[in-house]
Amino acid sequence: MPKMKILTERDLREIVPLDLTAVQRVNDAFLSLATQAVVMPPILRLDIPEHRGEVDVKTAYVPGLDSFAIKISPGFFDNPKIGLPSTNGMMVLFSSKTGLVEALLLDNGYLTDVRTAAAGAVAAKYLARNDASVAAVLGAGVQARLQLKAVALVRPIREARIWARDVSKAKIVAQELSAQLKCSVVAYEDPIRAVTGSHIVITTTPADKPILKASWLEPGQHVTAMGSDAEHKNEIEPAAIKRADLYVADSLKQTRRLGELHHALAQSVVREDENFAELGEIVAGLKPGRTNDLQVTIADLTGTGIQDTSIASLAFARSVAAKVGAEFES
Amino acid sequence: MPKMKILTERDLREIVPLDLTAVQRVNDAFLSLATQAVVMPPILRLDIPEHRGEVDVKTAYVPGLDSFAIKISPGFFDNPKIGLPSTNGMMVLFSSKTGLVEALLLDNGYLTDVRTAAAGAVAAKYLARNDASVAAVLGAGVQARLQLKAVALVRPIREARIWARDVSKAKIVAQELSAQLKCSVVAYEDPIRAVTGSHIVITTTPADKPILKASWLEPGQHVTAMGSDAEHKNEIEPAAIKRADLYVADSLKQTRRLGELHHALAQSVVREDENFAELGEIVAGLKPGRTNDLQVTIADLTGTGIQDTSIASLAFARSVAAKVGAEFES
Repeated sequence: MPKMKILTERDLREIVPLDLTAVQRVNDAFLSLATQAVVMPPILRLDIPEHRGEVDVKTAYVPGLDSFAIKISPGFFDNPKIGLPSTNGMMVLFSSKTGLVEALLLDNGYLTDVRTAAAGAVAAKYLARNDASVAAVLGAGVQARLQLKAVALVRPIREARIWARDVSKAKIVAQELSAQLKCSVVAYEDPIRAVTGSHIVITTTPADKPILKASWLEPGQHVTAMGSDAEHKNEIEPAAIKRADLYVADSLKQTRRLGELHHALAQSVVREDENFAELGEIVAGLKPGRTNDLQVTIADLTGTGIQDTSIASLAFARSVAAKVGAEFES
Repeated sequence: MPKMKILTERDLREIVPLDLTAVQRVNDAFLSLATQAVVMPPILRLDIPEHRGEVDVKTAYVPGLDSFAIKISPGFFDNPKIGLPSTNGMMVLFSSKTGLVEALLLDNGYLTDVRTAAAGAVAAKYLARNDASVAAVLGAGVQARLQLKAVALVRPIREARIWARDVSKAKIVAQELSAQLKCSVVAYEDPIRAVTGSHIVITTTPADKPILKASWLEPGQHVTAMGSDAEHKNEIEPAAIKRADLYVADSLKQTRRLGELHHALAQSVVREDENFAELGEIVAGLKPGRTNDLQVTIADLTGTGIQDTSIASLAFARSVAAKVGAEFES
């Protein structure tokens, strides 16, 4: 009977914090995506309309890595009505050599939160001005918190602004983060005011109509849009993609179908055959990132299976080193 | 912290035998597929060419069912060289209402074996002659054994024939099954001889070149081809599909891409727009099954996510009733 490790959310929170190592792993994942024969199949998506539910399954195999992860992410949007979180999920780590299960990562979505925020940091590292010190976050959920923490790992953030449709939620986030980050964090009632003068703008909402207008953008700003991971979601006005000097996708295959780019294509704001960069190509130095302090840059992040494989591999290695988790025989 | 049940292969072998209840559940799954708004996304497939590995992820949601399964099936074909089985895998059962994990079914592929064999029984039930008593099985693996047992649940099998490329393997299967089934089971060296005079022929191999020729088929025979679940696999000569009076797919979407039909289409043996029946349509009475004892019928089974959801739901219900399995908090 094969043996596997079972790691709970508590274990994983302990051994995989959002830190520079996590950011580096996700950085390396994007590097692999651009430079190796990575196998990353299209996302499997199951819709359960009766319960406003959707499930995404993502995976990727990186040649040379001992393991690959398959991640199952359910999102059930009526859950908060009965006191449950909307999103949860788990990852399964398999041996790349035998296909045997190495670990069940029962993270309830925690590792996804970490690898998603880490991708935001990677985007900021290559696309935001080196001296970016003011960051605006649109949204007040888990990713609003984590994206801000992640970007503060790679840029000298001294002022952060939080806007949310419900300003009371923005205030809660601002209060929380003021205590945790060594900078001023203020809630804003007006998104334009939050965006104006910011060096980095991060959209973290499940919006299906743009919350960030093209006309608000200023020279030198970097935008990370990480909320849209499904056809109907749309955080930034399509014209913003045309306005930007540099648009970068985590995976063009995905952003053409699911991300902000999808809406710009649908509205013919950009041409179907237009050639955009992927984050991994910039990490690998195959295409340029930001080249001066006046460019407007946009990173369109839909979340990729290779990030899941990279964070799950990190979690497993740490669990072995720290002797954390239960052994289970199947 | 959400609670879930963990069931091991041993638990599952105990509570989910291949019996008429399992066959009935899979029967009902096909019925749902034809009569309800089932959501069954395309299979996610990950290839790991370095290690001759492949992973399929299947799922389906049936309106009204409390749960849905996501199944992960790795097949690593170099495993036998190091003393491991080629295939293994697991299923995760989720609440249809909240998306929370209800159970981890660490079955190492056992439930897949059961639901696959059960589909063979469903196919025989609607497509084989009522008096079918002679069955030939091509192949000598797990499914050779289980398909024969399954078909014996629904037809009065008194004679079974096993052919395999390696006759010594066929002999082992024949010996094993002679002891278990109440009928004669004999190994054959020549596949034509095994097929000639059989009422039911079941192909259970990973062949990539046909092992069953069209010219061998006789009036009244039913063929179940269950080995092909990938583009390169092909067990029956494409001309056999043209020769058959009735060709039935488990899922036309899948057999057009992965099954025997795929090769018949590729060789233009059947027309692209030809209208075939699905097994569920026959179960539901929407299309006729076998209508006389002279027809040649073919069932092309690629394995569907709805079979996984149905068998996983049965396993979970039985585990609750029998208080089997470990509770786990994530």
